[in-house]
Amino acid sequence: MSNESAVIESPIQDYLQEIHSRHSTLRDGQVATYIPELAKANPDWFGICLVTADGHIYEVGDSRQHFTIQSISKPFVYGLALEDNTRAEVLKKISVEPTGEAFNAISLEPGTGRPRNPMINAGAIAAAGLVAGKEPQTRLRRMLEMFSLYAGEDVTIDESVYQSESQTGHRNRAIGHMLRNFDILTEPPEPVVDLYFKQCSVSVSCRHLGIMAATLANHGVNPLTGKQAIRGEYVESVLSVMGSCGMYDYAGEWLYRVGMPAKSGVAGGVIAVLPGQLGIGVFSPLLDSHGNSVRGLKVCDDLSRHFDLHLFNTPHESKSVIRLKFTAADVNSNCVRTSEEAETLRAHGHCIQIIQLQGNLALSTAEVVVHDVMASPKGVSVVLLDFKHVLSINESAMRLLHQLLLKLEVQHIQLVFTNAAHMPSLRRYMKIKMKEQFDQLFRSFDDNDAALESCENRLLAEKLGSARTARAVGTADYQLLAGLESKEIAAVEACFTRRQFQPGEVILSFGAKAGELYFLARGCASATLSRSNGTTKRLGTFSPGMVFGEMALLDESPRSATVTAETDVDCDLLKIQDFKQLGESHPRIALIMMRNLALVLSRNLKKRNQEFSVFNY
Amino acid sequence: MSNESAVIESPIQDYLQEIHSRHSTLRDGQVATYIPELAKANPDWFGICLVTADGHIYEVGDSRQHFTIQSISKPFVYGLALEDNTRAEVLKKISVEPTGEAFNAISLEPGTGRPRNPMINAGAIAAAGLVAGKEPQTRLRRMLEMFSLYAGEDVTIDESVYQSESQTGHRNRAIGHMLRNFDILTEPPEPVVDLYFKQCSVSVSCRHLGIMAATLANHGVNPLTGKQAIRGEYVESVLSVMGSCGMYDYAGEWLYRVGMPAKSGVAGGVIAVLPGQLGIGVFSPLLDSHGNSVRGLKVCDDLSRHFDLHLFNTPHESKSVIRLKFTAADVNSNCVRTSEEAETLRAHGHCIQIIQLQGNLALSTAEVVVHDVMASPKGVSVVLLDFKHVLSINESAMRLLHQLLLKLEVQHIQLVFTNAAHMPSLRRYMKIKMKEQFDQLFRSFDDNDAALESCENRLLAEKLGSARTARAVGTADYQLLAGLESKEIAAVEACFTRRQFQPGEVILSFGAKAGELYFLARGCASATLSRSNGTTKRLGTFSPGMVFGEMALLDESPRSATVTAETDVDCDLLKIQDFKQLGESHPRIALIMMRNLALVLSRNLKKRNQEFSVFNY
Repeated sequence: MSNESAVIESPIQDYLQEIHSRHSTLRDGQVATYIPELAKANPDWFGICLVTADGHIYEVGDSRQHFTIQSISKPFVYGLALEDNTRAEVLKKISVEPTGEAFNAISLEPGTGRPRNPMINAGAIAAAGLVAGKEPQTRLRRMLEMFSLYAGEDVTIDESVYQSESQTGHRNRAIGHMLRNFDILTEPPEPVVDLYFKQCSVSVSCRHLGIMAATLANHGVNPLTGKQAIRGEYVESVLSVMGSCGMYDYAGEWLYRVGMPAKSGVAGGVIAVLPGQLGIGVFSPLLDSHGNSVRGLKVCDDLSRHFDLHLFNTPHESKSVIRLKFTAADVNSNCVRTSEEAETLRAHGHCIQIIQLQGNLALSTAEVVVHDVMASPKGVSVVLLDFKHVLSINESAMRLLHQLLLKLEVQHIQLVFTNAAHMPSLRRYMKIKMKEQFDQLFRSFDDNDAALESCENRLLAEKLGSARTARAVGTADYQLLAGLESKEIAAVEACFTRRQFQPGEVILSFGAKAGELYFLARGCASATLSRSNGTTKRLGTFSPGMVFGEMALLDESPRSATVTAETDVDCDLLKIQDFKQLGESHPRIALIMMRNLALVLSRNLKKRNQEFSVFNY
Repeated sequence: MSNESAVIESPIQDYLQEIHSRHSTLRDGQVATYIPELAKANPDWFGICLVTADGHIYEVGDSRQHFTIQSISKPFVYGLALEDNTRAEVLKKISVEPTGEAFNAISLEPGTGRPRNPMINAGAIAAAGLVAGKEPQTRLRRMLEMFSLYAGEDVTIDESVYQSESQTGHRNRAIGHMLRNFDILTEPPEPVVDLYFKQCSVSVSCRHLGIMAATLANHGVNPLTGKQAIRGEYVESVLSVMGSCGMYDYAGEWLYRVGMPAKSGVAGGVIAVLPGQLGIGVFSPLLDSHGNSVRGLKVCDDLSRHFDLHLFNTPHESKSVIRLKFTAADVNSNCVRTSEEAETLRAHGHCIQIIQLQGNLALSTAEVVVHDVMASPKGVSVVLLDFKHVLSINESAMRLLHQLLLKLEVQHIQLVFTNAAHMPSLRRYMKIKMKEQFDQLFRSFDDNDAALESCENRLLAEKLGSARTARAVGTADYQLLAGLESKEIAAVEACFTRRQFQPGEVILSFGAKAGELYFLARGCASATLSRSNGTTKRLGTFSPGMVFGEMALLDESPRSATVTAETDVDCDLLKIQDFKQLGESHPRIALIMMRNLALVLSRNLKKRNQEFSVFNY
């Protein structure tokens, strides 16, 4: 990014380095020893990884060292159980109340036998029993596929840890049989408990954990691969159980201090999720008495304080949903208007209100929009909502917009949608809700320019009568000839060549040599530029009486745009050569035409400057 | 908002009506009877109120009916205790772990005697004991003042409920003495317990509750009055205890289903908070076995599902922090440039990068900015951050920007701040961090135009040498006279009148009659317009060789801007009358001047169109 070769590190990276060194010396806690394989962990291992919902990764230390996921698998498998069964079915089998008890407490609800929550072993085994698949192999494959989607690359099972878990897992087998006893598990418990041992033995790095957490922060979509690891609607449930039960009997203080849904595992991993923003993965095998990684907790605590990550420390967002607001009295379509039309738009354009939206549309932001539209000044007859900068829209916001549209309709106010092609769900929703009225009521345009022109035309037709593009004009009506005497007009007319164009025909081409100017007698024509992305940008649409290609009068530069006939078009062409001769023979004609041209340019510039001030930074 | 007189209701209001009617028929549950006064409540009372963080209020039913706040007072008084003592001190006296037990469980931590959390009676009484004030009356006054700030109007105590509470509150007196026994209360417990009875007897409506909840959603600032009810830094702690312990032994399921920090009271009130977005207050005295309002829970559940309010259903926000990005090759300051300068800016303007920010700057959004700036293309030498649309900035974001600035400085890249006057904390932070280097390193401008001009001038000086405004030009250099022969120039010169102006002197005034045009021989002058807010907008700054007041050549409209001398200025004035005579005597001169004018206008229009396309909707 600069002329020097040194790579500069992000300040976020710097801070991770800083807390990594600070806590490296911390030797409190014990490596888990309940199975021999875990006891082999190096107590010095220490990695930190922070991944944003945009997929930017910051990592330090042993962030690529592999270890087993252990209890951190629980929320993910619980999510898979939700997808495979629906929320209501899963709630029948597993409750969601914190126990205030240790991780391996059996904690079944008296009477029903429901495990208290899916973060204790009993609940996690019940969740594993809800993973769909006929054969144990199928269930295992589906579970590994899920973990791989979260991690962004294929994950596998650490066989020796699995063997070790399986050989020593008597307590978990007991839980399995107890769950079978209460019909929480409806099939033989052994294969389910075996699946549970395998899910705990999935081998991951702390970089993986960071990406997995960021996937939960990003509404279930892995920010690196763009793939959906869990349906968005279930993310809230996974984060809820992490939020209330993820840190065992430390859950309340964790929420209070760190303020992020989180989960720890006995191999020393910790994940924390700040929804909509980022995910954190930490790995250090030294555990405290709750079974949480000592350094993991310290790191999360420091990150939360330093970066102000507490979930409930949320600034007020909704105000920024309205990016910009203006009316057709301020800004117009690129249709070039006559003075009369321009005057009419200036006088009545406030009836057409344009509201540019941005960000995510949910209840609180859509409420601001609805509130604002409903408070529109008297006389507004069209409200144009521009979705270009909208990032997402949820059903609640679509519902409000649909209801707003119906309410406005009753008041004879049109709601128009533009730039909403990237929000196909909006169109779908409206179609379902409006049924046969859809075509009539859902007014939608690809861009603001087209929408604005259509609204302007309706307003102009209402105020000025029939559209001017229909009629042809005579030479005396050409704006460039205003102020000439009839003899002088005849002299110009003598130099004209009449040309006709069919709809779609190119009248003049970008880059061509400019040898004449065009007086538009009948029909309309548009000047356009090709954009680099292959689309076309309209610079202006001309109507009878106007002139184009006029730059030929001023300099010898090639054509700066392509002009195409929109309808059947009649043009009078004036060669530059002929204009120059007119300048010799009739200097007054040339001077008046040049003054008229300067006047048109100056009006256009003034209009543009006014519009510019609406958008200007 | 329309031509018809019928008031249209917001769809949000409609939905509140709908759930109000739906649940009105629900008669499950019992009115609280543990004190006689509560038993008098009408079981039909039912009000709902939703208040956005913007302060828009939607309310239905008995939303103005008064009742006593009861346990809903607990989080608010806890917040006051935090403000009066600091978080660390309060944590020493009251833990924050959920108990899974009923509201009146004594639940003291073995050993320390700390109440488990501030939402059970023991914790709430301990919190009341932490309210500062020498006399009981002072503490009561401070507590009522706090509630009034939250509610947006003065609240009072319901004396008969207070008497009733006081007469029957033996269990709470027992708790008080137990807390004194463990030194959690360090003074006689009776006045503290009395204060607690009074806080529970504060009389509120469900509209009050909605506003109080919205105040918590709005970072502690009452959205109606704009007054701070609690310091923003403590809001996260209040919401945390509501989130983990607010709904007694229903807390886990509540978080899972409804997903908002909440609190209920035995008089039938419920509040729920969606941080950054909105607050909800519901009132219906029929309670379930947990002591929560039956209809209150249903309403919150419905609102959460219908409007998608779950806390963890958060869309990804950070992408929208960059509103717009461009370089000085695309958009320039309003300093009018010569062709040579304009060409230089087109060729080298990409060194000056402008990034418009918007919304709230916290870690995840500031990270996007830092990441983006650090990935700037090679050759960028200035990055201008525009804060005009930034709503808030937290310390974490300021820290990142400070660190970014230092890192860029090492790479000889300047970070420039514009439009940041509404963010005084940014300037303060930088001043504290930079100390004596502040003046040198913190480059800040009131607006982009001034910032951009300064950056452009630096670039132009580097590429073209000394500033052109310093030198005077001769008649032959006037852009409007280009292409004239020396005899012709002499003819024009003969019509000139030389005028001199001092810095700050008005050369021509907005609205005045236009009788002449001005050729700028020396110095520079700016065209400005007064904005309705009293500030001045610069339309352009002219330098020697340029012309202004040129519209006088085209029509008879009055001056459209005020032009003021920025430096000592020499001008040559050409009267319109004289120009007309030139047209008669030297038609070629007039035509060439008019063509030159059209050419200047057309170049300006083209430049404006290009700039417009950067901002355009």
